[in-house]
Amino acid sequence: MKRAATHRGEFGRIARYFAPLAQSHPGAFGLRDDAAVIAPQEGHEFVVTTDTIVAGVHFIGDETPALIASKLLRVNLSDLAAMGATPRAYTLNIALPAETDDQWVEAFASGLAEDQAQFGIVLIGGDSVGTPGPSVFTLTALGEVPVAGAIRRGGARAGDKVFVSGTIGDGALGLRALRDQLAGVSTEEREWLAGRYRQPEPRLALGRRLFGVAHAAADISDGLVADLAHIADASGVAATLDASAVPLSPAACSAIGEDNMLVQTVLTGGDDYELVICAPPQNEAALQSLAEEIELPLTVVGSLYEGDGVRVVNADGAEIQLDRTGFSHG
Amino acid sequence: MKRAATHRGEFGRIARYFAPLAQSHPGAFGLRDDAAVIAPQEGHEFVVTTDTIVAGVHFIGDETPALIASKLLRVNLSDLAAMGATPRAYTLNIALPAETDDQWVEAFASGLAEDQAQFGIVLIGGDSVGTPGPSVFTLTALGEVPVAGAIRRGGARAGDKVFVSGTIGDGALGLRALRDQLAGVSTEEREWLAGRYRQPEPRLALGRRLFGVAHAAADISDGLVADLAHIADASGVAATLDASAVPLSPAACSAIGEDNMLVQTVLTGGDDYELVICAPPQNEAALQSLAEEIELPLTVVGSLYEGDGVRVVNADGAEIQLDRTGFSHG
Repeated sequence: MKRAATHRGEFGRIARYFAPLAQSHPGAFGLRDDAAVIAPQEGHEFVVTTDTIVAGVHFIGDETPALIASKLLRVNLSDLAAMGATPRAYTLNIALPAETDDQWVEAFASGLAEDQAQFGIVLIGGDSVGTPGPSVFTLTALGEVPVAGAIRRGGARAGDKVFVSGTIGDGALGLRALRDQLAGVSTEEREWLAGRYRQPEPRLALGRRLFGVAHAAADISDGLVADLAHIADASGVAATLDASAVPLSPAACSAIGEDNMLVQTVLTGGDDYELVICAPPQNEAALQSLAEEIELPLTVVGSLYEGDGVRVVNADGAEIQLDRTGFSHG
Repeated sequence: MKRAATHRGEFGRIARYFAPLAQSHPGAFGLRDDAAVIAPQEGHEFVVTTDTIVAGVHFIGDETPALIASKLLRVNLSDLAAMGATPRAYTLNIALPAETDDQWVEAFASGLAEDQAQFGIVLIGGDSVGTPGPSVFTLTALGEVPVAGAIRRGGARAGDKVFVSGTIGDGALGLRALRDQLAGVSTEEREWLAGRYRQPEPRLALGRRLFGVAHAAADISDGLVADLAHIADASGVAATLDASAVPLSPAACSAIGEDNMLVQTVLTGGDDYELVICAPPQNEAALQSLAEEIELPLTVVGSLYEGDGVRVVNADGAEIQLDRTGFSHG
């Protein structure tokens, strides 16, 4: 939100709608300087993550501006959670078509304001430009971890158990619900699933407690199978995922009761934003008491072995073949 | 360049063209984790700046991919220079149309590789997505300054002299040259001006030496008059700019010799990426010896007073009226 960038946008909008979001960080200089200044707390380092979304590709288009903003912030917060980081600050870059009105921008900013308060993060900079194409938003988030305390993907070991937080598949089923491609669910369940897709819950309270307990973690954005494969790959181990152990919400159960092919959607669909965690068996009790404390279920869904790749099995150990192992927008 | 973002792009391209750019920073984890880890050196803090450019809006479209990448990086480095910061790392978000081929991406990355080596900065993360619209690029740069050592816009005081680095107006004249709207210049001058527009030189060596010498600085991206106005505004002072003192390149002199209305382009055109600096008169000698040391001329072009606004005057002190005080793309 610089005033002297090469490509600065509408000064008025920035001052009016975005500068208030930067008020609590003195080093943001009211979004009026060339850059912002920020440092991690003593003994900490920064974790940096960034995402870009394009209208019509990464969001459907009928979302409220506040929800688009909230989801963009939350998917970045989810990456911070997966690294065990505490959110600190973010920058926001918006490319908007000329026809975007102030009301839209105001609503977009209001979605950020609400989530800033909830997650303890503050806007410190950005850029606003025009585009002849669809809206494009980029958000870059800074979190912090104690030095060398980041939870990596590559730290998992053979013998580890694989845990997931919450319930899996709600995001992908929610997208289907929004596209009217989901039967067997009640109106309430449909809305609940859509909400899980549209406004995921970054698992920050869980992530920041994983240091010393878990060997590796990732957030489930590509789909459980793909994200577990990323961990296995980065760690040089093989994983077995027990499909029958994967925790499902009541709404997901209703959907699968109507069409059991949706199991595949649950396992490979993206947008869960739960965490998949690998930890040694002796830490299972610690993880379970953490789960109770933060009131977020953790469920064992598999194990790691010497080797490579991910095998998905059913309750009797037979391998299940999946059509695709991930989910990609673009 | 995460593999598990909501909206991840082409894994192959990231691994092939961008991961090599992240090799020298271990905390980038080869662009394969949820996020990167980085900390400022002991006693330092980070300076964060970001810019977005859109094809057809912020670049003409016939640039080589390497030059597009280089300019995007350099305009961010220019912001770091204006804050007195030393470059450390950056993230890159690219939204590309489906028809963009690997050769284009490879050339884009090669432009970054060259500038990384020159300016000592490294890629630590990003995102790659598809778009049905024009290409959109966002780059977010991290630099570092000693704690509380950032040069701000708001620190200027009445009585300060106003300095500029290098020569002014070449960027805006270069854009005219590229659009075939510039007469009176030789082919060599035309190419030199175009180069100043297409690949500006971030004044990092100057910026990082301003602490303790200058009260305020900004990079000239909106145009000299507008950027000086930003400083005056943020500092609560008035500025007088002596148009006759503004340093011109030989090529700019040729262009103005043909059409003296171009003086206005020089004073208000954007894309100079020189620094405008405010410092007390007693520091002029220190600035001049710094200028000699780094072989970059610094020229006094005005002064600051009590009051507000920017007055542009000619050699005999008469005020000049300008049509516009800045330059805005989007």
